[in-house]
Amino acid sequence: MPYHAPAQDLQFILKNVVDFARVTQQDRFGDIDHDTLEAIFQEAAKLSNDVIAPLNRIGDIEGAKLENGRVTTATGFANAFQQIAQGGWIGMLADPDHGGMGLPLSVATAVNEMMAGACLSLSLNPLMTQGQIEALEQHASDDIKALYLPKLLSGEWTGTMNLTEAGAGSDVGALRSTATPNGDGSYAITGQKIFITWGDHDFADNLCHLVLARLPDGAAGTKGISLFMVPKFIPKSDSSLGAQNAVSVVSLEHKLGIHGSPTCVMDYAGAKGWLIGEEHKGMHCMFTMMNNARLGVAVQGVGCAEAATQQALAYAQDRIQGRTAQHNGQGTILHHADVRRMLLTMRADTFAARSIALACAVSLDLGGDDAAQKAQGAFLIPIAKSFGTDVGHEVSQMGIQVHGGMGYIEETGAAQLARDVRVTSIYEGTNGIQAIDLVTRKLMDTGDAAYGLLDNIEHCAENARDEFPALAKQVWEAAETLREGVEAMVALPQTDRLAGAVPFLRAFARVLGAFAHLKAAGAGGLGSDRAYLAEFYIGRLLPEYRFLLTQALHGADDLYAIAADDLNFG
Amino acid sequence: MPYHAPAQDLQFILKNVVDFARVTQQDRFGDIDHDTLEAIFQEAAKLSNDVIAPLNRIGDIEGAKLENGRVTTATGFANAFQQIAQGGWIGMLADPDHGGMGLPLSVATAVNEMMAGACLSLSLNPLMTQGQIEALEQHASDDIKALYLPKLLSGEWTGTMNLTEAGAGSDVGALRSTATPNGDGSYAITGQKIFITWGDHDFADNLCHLVLARLPDGAAGTKGISLFMVPKFIPKSDSSLGAQNAVSVVSLEHKLGIHGSPTCVMDYAGAKGWLIGEEHKGMHCMFTMMNNARLGVAVQGVGCAEAATQQALAYAQDRIQGRTAQHNGQGTILHHADVRRMLLTMRADTFAARSIALACAVSLDLGGDDAAQKAQGAFLIPIAKSFGTDVGHEVSQMGIQVHGGMGYIEETGAAQLARDVRVTSIYEGTNGIQAIDLVTRKLMDTGDAAYGLLDNIEHCAENARDEFPALAKQVWEAAETLREGVEAMVALPQTDRLAGAVPFLRAFARVLGAFAHLKAAGAGGLGSDRAYLAEFYIGRLLPEYRFLLTQALHGADDLYAIAADDLNFG
Repeated sequence: MPYHAPAQDLQFILKNVVDFARVTQQDRFGDIDHDTLEAIFQEAAKLSNDVIAPLNRIGDIEGAKLENGRVTTATGFANAFQQIAQGGWIGMLADPDHGGMGLPLSVATAVNEMMAGACLSLSLNPLMTQGQIEALEQHASDDIKALYLPKLLSGEWTGTMNLTEAGAGSDVGALRSTATPNGDGSYAITGQKIFITWGDHDFADNLCHLVLARLPDGAAGTKGISLFMVPKFIPKSDSSLGAQNAVSVVSLEHKLGIHGSPTCVMDYAGAKGWLIGEEHKGMHCMFTMMNNARLGVAVQGVGCAEAATQQALAYAQDRIQGRTAQHNGQGTILHHADVRRMLLTMRADTFAARSIALACAVSLDLGGDDAAQKAQGAFLIPIAKSFGTDVGHEVSQMGIQVHGGMGYIEETGAAQLARDVRVTSIYEGTNGIQAIDLVTRKLMDTGDAAYGLLDNIEHCAENARDEFPALAKQVWEAAETLREGVEAMVALPQTDRLAGAVPFLRAFARVLGAFAHLKAAGAGGLGSDRAYLAEFYIGRLLPEYRFLLTQALHGADDLYAIAADDLNFG
Repeated sequence: MPYHAPAQDLQFILKNVVDFARVTQQDRFGDIDHDTLEAIFQEAAKLSNDVIAPLNRIGDIEGAKLENGRVTTATGFANAFQQIAQGGWIGMLADPDHGGMGLPLSVATAVNEMMAGACLSLSLNPLMTQGQIEALEQHASDDIKALYLPKLLSGEWTGTMNLTEAGAGSDVGALRSTATPNGDGSYAITGQKIFITWGDHDFADNLCHLVLARLPDGAAGTKGISLFMVPKFIPKSDSSLGAQNAVSVVSLEHKLGIHGSPTCVMDYAGAKGWLIGEEHKGMHCMFTMMNNARLGVAVQGVGCAEAATQQALAYAQDRIQGRTAQHNGQGTILHHADVRRMLLTMRADTFAARSIALACAVSLDLGGDDAAQKAQGAFLIPIAKSFGTDVGHEVSQMGIQVHGGMGYIEETGAAQLARDVRVTSIYEGTNGIQAIDLVTRKLMDTGDAAYGLLDNIEHCAENARDEFPALAKQVWEAAETLREGVEAMVALPQTDRLAGAVPFLRAFARVLGAFAHLKAAGAGGLGSDRAYLAEFYIGRLLPEYRFLLTQALHGADDLYAIAADDLNFG
C-alpha cells in the first residue's frame, strides 16, 4: 500500500498544538507563513510519496554491497538522492548566505519525518549531511566552509559522522583514534571507526568524514578529543578533487534492518585531516549538532510509526475475516474490538510522539532569544528521541500483529518497518542514555524547564475545562502528579535517579502526549475525530504514567541486591 | 555464547512453585519421582545444549530451500533430528502401549522449552509430530494408529497440521478445501493450505499431513469441517511406501524469522486422504490437540526469552564501558542501573512466564480426575500462550537493547532471537484471539477457575505474611483487586469484554507471576536471590496490573467512536 506523507497532520500540529506561530514571528524566519508552509510540505510530501517511498522495499531486498572497496547502492537510490538534492532539501536548515533554505528546525523536522517514513535507509544520507553542514557552519574555518559547504549543499559531496569505535560506544571518551600534526596545518588521522552510516556509496563525487580523534597532548576521556574533517578525496582549493586519502571501508555490517543504508567499518591509516573548531574541543562541536541529530532520530521513529499505521489500517480495511457484533455477517477485521484498539493506539501514540518532537523543535527555534524556551528544547530532546523511537518500535510491532500471519511474511513490508525502526532506539545515544541525560544534566541543570512545561499543561487543562471537563480533569491531575514526581525525583540521590531514568522519561512523555491530544481536541471541537482520539489516548494510554512513576521512584536497591555473577538462575 | 538449558530453574519450579508433587502421585505417572525427573532433564539439556543449540544460527543463515519441489534443510538439522528421535523425545507424551514415554505434560512442556530455546526452527518439527501423535491417539481408527504411530514415534515419518487458507486464518470456518468420498473408504482432498510448518523436508521418509476440509454435505462454518490424514507417500499395509500422493509444495514463505523452518504453501489436487474421527467433527479433533499446541507455543516464547536473557547477561558481564558509582573506574555495563533494570526484568518475567506455563501443564495433567483442575488448565492456556510469547518478544527486544549497537548486528544472534520468537505471538491463534477465548468461553463458562486461582494466590499470600510481610501484602491486594476486576468483567456486555480482553489477560498474568515469585521467595528463604528477584518483580513489574485493569474495564465506546474510514488522519 502506498505511503502517504502526513503533511496535513504535521500542519495541524504546527498550527494548533505547538507554538509555531511564534516561530513565524521571528525575524530570521520572516517569510514563513502557513501558505508557504503548505507549499513546502506539499513538495516534500510529493517527493516522499512518489520518489522515495517506492524504493523502501527495493533497498531492503538489494541492500548495499561492498565490492572492491567501493560501496554500491540499491537500484534507484542514486536518482532519488539527486532529486532530494535538487529540491534543496539537504540545505533546508543551512544559512541562505551559504545557499541554504534557512528554514526553521520545526519545518525541517517535519520534512525529515516525511522522508524517514518513506524510506528510512535512504533518508539517513541527506540527514547525515544536514548535520555535517550544521557542524561546519558553526565551527569550521572560513576556508573550510568555502570549500565544503557548496558541495555538501548541492549533494555533490555527502557527509558522515565518525564517533564510535569498538571499545568506545556510549562512552565516547574511551576512543583510541589518534591525530598527529603534519606540520602543514593538516593532521594525520589513524584509527578504526565502526557503525559509520553511509560511510561510502556510489552517488556522490566525494565523501566528507567528520572524525573524532585524540591529539598527542589530548587528555584522557572526552576532554582530550578533537574533531577533524577527513575527505575521501582531498579537494584542491578550486574544489576539484585531488588524491585519494588514506581512508578505506573495511567491511559492511549485516544488520537487522536498514539494509539499504551501508553501515561501514572505516579505517584511517594516517589519513589527512583538518581541524574543525579548537583543539580538544571536539566533543563540544559534536554536542551542538547532536541535539538536532537526536531530534532527527526522534522523527525517524515517528515516520516509521506513521508508515506502519497507514499500512496496518489499509490491511485491516481490506482483510475480511470473522464476525462481530458491530457488523452482522462477515466483515473486515477493522470491526473487531482488539484490532480497533491496536489501530487507535498506533494512531494516538504516533500523534503524541509527533507533537512532542515538533514541540521540541519549536522550542529550539525560539531558543535563540529566549532562555526558557532554550531550556525546554534541551529538556525535550531526550524525551522526543526516546519516546519517538519507542513509539516507532511499538507501533511497527503492533502493525505486524494487526497483519496476523501475513505480518510475519516479508512481502507485506510490515516486518521491514519493524526491523528498520529498531535501530533508532539504539543509535545517536541509546534510549537508556537519553534517559540518563534527562535525569542528570537536563533535570538537575534545567529543572525549571520541567516545571515550565507542567505549567503549560495545567494552563491548557484549565482552559479546556468547559468544553472537555473529563479530559481536562485527567490531564490536570496527571500534570500535578507528575509535578510531585519531578520534585521527588530531583530530591533523590543520583543512583536512585539513574535507576528510575527510563520509566521517568516515559511518564513525562505520556503526560506531554495527553497535553498534545487535549490541544488537538480543542482545535477539532466537541464530537470531532480529534476529540475522540484524545478521549482514547487520555482514557486508555495516559494512565500508564502512574505505573511508570511507581517504577521511576522505586530507588536502586532492588537492582543491586543480587550479585552480578548470580544473575543466572538456569 | 553457548545456550545453557534451564534445567535447574524448571526443576525448581516443578518442586516449589507448582503442584507437580500431585502429578507424581497419579497412578499413570507412577514412576516419575524427582530423581527420574532430574535424569530426564539432564538428558534433554545435554541434547539441547550440545546438539540443537549449535544449529540455531546455521539454520538462520542457510534457511530452508525449495528445489525441484523438494525442501532441503540447513546443515546439521537432519542429524540433530535423528538424535531427538533416537532419544524418544518425539513420543514423550505418547502412550507407552504405542511405544511412547508416557510422560506428564508438565515434564514434556519443560523439555519442549529447552529445545525451543536451543533452536526454535528445528524444535517445531518434533513438536508438530507430537501434536499429530496426540490427535491420532485420541481420534484415529485402530488401523490408522497401527500404521502411522510407530513411524511417527520413531521419527521415520513426521507430521504437519493444515488448517489455514488464504481466506481462512483466525476464522477457520471460512475454509474452502473440499473432501469427496472416493467410494473405497478414502477421500479426495482438494485445496490450497498456507503457513504449513515443516510441510516438507529432507530428513524423513514420509510426511503425514492432517488436513481440514469440508465434505460435500458439510455445513458452512466450523461445524461442517472434517479432518483427514493425507500422506505424501501412500503407505501400504506393511507400512512400506507406495505411490506419491497428489500433494505438493507450491512455495516457501520469506519470513521475518525461523528461517530454518520451512513454512509451506501446500497444494492438494484430489490427494487421497483418510478420515480422522467422525465426519464434520474435524474442529473437535483439532481442539483437543490445540490446547497442548498452545502450551507448546507458550514455552517457545519462554525458551527464547531464556536464551535472550542468557545472551544479554553474558554480553553485559563482558562489555566494558563507562563508569558508575557502583564501580569506581571502568567496569562492565552490568554495573549501570538501567542495564540491571533490563536484565532483572528479563529474568523476572521469564521466570513468571515459565511458572504460568508449568502451572497450566500441571493442571492439565491433573485434569483427568479433577474437574476444578481441568477448568483451571483450560483457563490458563490462553494466558500461558499470550503472556509466554509476549514475554518472549519483549525480553528478546530488551536483549537487543542491552547489546546496544551490537544488538542490531546479526552476528551476535540477539536480533535472530527477536525475529524468531515474533511468530509465536501470531501463530496457533494470535494473542488477540487467545484473549477473546479467555474473556468469552473461558471466563464465562469456567469462571470458577478464575476464582479458584485467586483463592490460591490469597492463600499463598496469607502464608507468606510472616516471612515477607511487604511482598505478601502487595500480592494479596493485587489478587483482591483482580477479583473485583473479574467480577466487573463478567458483568460487562460481550462487546465491552472483547474491548478489554488483551489488557485483562495481561493483568491476570501479572498477578499470577507475582504468585509464582512469592512462592519462589518462600522456597529460597529470606535474603536469597529468589527473594530478591521476587522483590524486584512485585515492586516494579506487578504494579502494571492496575493500569491494565483500567484499560480492561474501559468499555468499547471509544473504540468505535471514530468511523472506520476516518482513521487516517494524515
